[in-house]
Amino acid sequence: MGELRKDYVLDRWVIIATERGKRPHQFKHKTEMPDVKDFFAPGNEHLCPPEIYRKEKNGGWQIRVFPNKFPAVKPEGNSTIKTDNKFYTYADAVGKHEVIVETPDNRQMWDLSIEEIKDVLEVYNLRINEILKIPGIKYVCVFKNHKREAGTSIIHSHSQVIAYDKVPRVVQEKINASKNHDSCPYCEIIEKEKDSERRCFENDNFVAFAPYASRFPFEVLILPKEHKKDLNELDLLGLADIIKKVILKLKELNAPYNYVLHYSPSDENLHFQIEVLPRLATWAGFEYSGTVINTMPPEKAAEFYRE
Amino acid sequence: MGELRKDYVLDRWVIIATERGKRPHQFKHKTEMPDVKDFFAPGNEHLCPPEIYRKEKNGGWQIRVFPNKFPAVKPEGNSTIKTDNKFYTYADAVGKHEVIVETPDNRQMWDLSIEEIKDVLEVYNLRINEILKIPGIKYVCVFKNHKREAGTSIIHSHSQVIAYDKVPRVVQEKINASKNHDSCPYCEIIEKEKDSERRCFENDNFVAFAPYASRFPFEVLILPKEHKKDLNELDLLGLADIIKKVILKLKELNAPYNYVLHYSPSDENLHFQIEVLPRLATWAGFEYSGTVINTMPPEKAAEFYRE
Repeated sequence: MGELRKDYVLDRWVIIATERGKRPHQFKHKTEMPDVKDFFAPGNEHLCPPEIYRKEKNGGWQIRVFPNKFPAVKPEGNSTIKTDNKFYTYADAVGKHEVIVETPDNRQMWDLSIEEIKDVLEVYNLRINEILKIPGIKYVCVFKNHKREAGTSIIHSHSQVIAYDKVPRVVQEKINASKNHDSCPYCEIIEKEKDSERRCFENDNFVAFAPYASRFPFEVLILPKEHKKDLNELDLLGLADIIKKVILKLKELNAPYNYVLHYSPSDENLHFQIEVLPRLATWAGFEYSGTVINTMPPEKAAEFYRE
Repeated sequence: MGELRKDYVLDRWVIIATERGKRPHQFKHKTEMPDVKDFFAPGNEHLCPPEIYRKEKNGGWQIRVFPNKFPAVKPEGNSTIKTDNKFYTYADAVGKHEVIVETPDNRQMWDLSIEEIKDVLEVYNLRINEILKIPGIKYVCVFKNHKREAGTSIIHSHSQVIAYDKVPRVVQEKINASKNHDSCPYCEIIEKEKDSERRCFENDNFVAFAPYASRFPFEVLILPKEHKKDLNELDLLGLADIIKKVILKLKELNAPYNYVLHYSPSDENLHFQIEVLPRLATWAGFEYSGTVINTMPPEKAAEFYRE
């Protein structure tokens, strides 16, 4: 029997539909990315906007950061919100939009070593801390899009940063929902889920589980076991270890995926978390009205991760 | 300059990014659907679940309705919500999930005549009215998915109905937002938009425009000019006429699209509307944190519709 399930703390409902009964490997992704010129490879640095940061290695670079060539937000402009106090409310899209190239070669993140993934996380943290110093920046959203079906046209392994004058809606909803509890709900949820049938992985400092009301087949939530707010407070090698465990399983499915970091703004107290969102199903008209259908129950997804 | 824009009434923000500057026909969609057995064609009726309704024509059928073979919700079960009053809230996924095949031949909806589209709208209304009589059904969501990128695997032109014990989140948000205004906000929005640079089409009883904070390239909102709540109150031939005008333009782009009907529950007073959502861009990690980037400004999308 399918179930209608509510998110742990958000007013967000999904239908867990079991009727199709597909086994995990039937989700395996077949399409390949089209070939394109590798703009992010060594030798093509001049085709990218001027470099912001590089991590050197063996006389070359290991990680490179530069502005997105087609930015969604730009440094210039006036981020003050203008409104007619009725129907039209807007501001200039002011902020920072950067690309973080994770490796010079053609390996994907799931091929990197734990140490190399840790290096990427350190660069995330560097950029977040640096960009947060800019007046008018409220939040630095860090995310990764892997494959075309997850919204990128560039194969070369990379992450992105978009920072602007708003806390992202989902992060704000999580902050608000957390305040409705006596203590951090995520600390309690971890206690319940880490030994449940939805558990995926665990190491000294982190847990990964398939959330109860997963919206995506094989969705995973990664959290530090202790209440931590952001990357500054975290064991980044441990975080890299658990990320690698999750995405190595996604490699078995050749899955397009996004992940997104939800850290706490400094004046709030949100439990740090990473949402890993495999893109093996396509949202349709029904989903865009507010209820998502997920044909892979999280309990079965977790079995796949553990096997 | 890109803009951060808020929806007319919802707390839903988008970034209208102009940097890529793609012209409308550069959005033209190239991929084709894979060939599959046409389960919805005449002669294959026995491969579908038992028929619920058919509209006859010339000794055969013109439109057919039957249960979805892989339903997200099912008639049996207990729709009472169970909860631990903390993190786990669920119910059996009880309801109706039906398929409406819109034509016996291989034409798509954008190839149908206005009269034939009106016939489809009449069947929508028949099914909504019929299903709403079932105890425990709060809303009947009617939507169409065209092409794989819009979430369907079946080419044969069809719509779907999913009905269950909840008003869809977006519909509820529109109802709530409408109550925050002295009178219907959509009646006012129509007055402002129907002669604006975002206007697309108009006929005697309907307007279609590209919404100010469009989330999708070429998104369109269709509304009756007078305040009407549901299909029972509408001029269905006029509605078919304006739908045809919109989707004939989408045919030029060979665009995958969804549309979804947002009617008012009988005890509420929401202005009836249809959201047309072309699927020519892919949401990525950033979008799933709550802010959508749209690279086609609605003012330019409207120009395309009017040309």
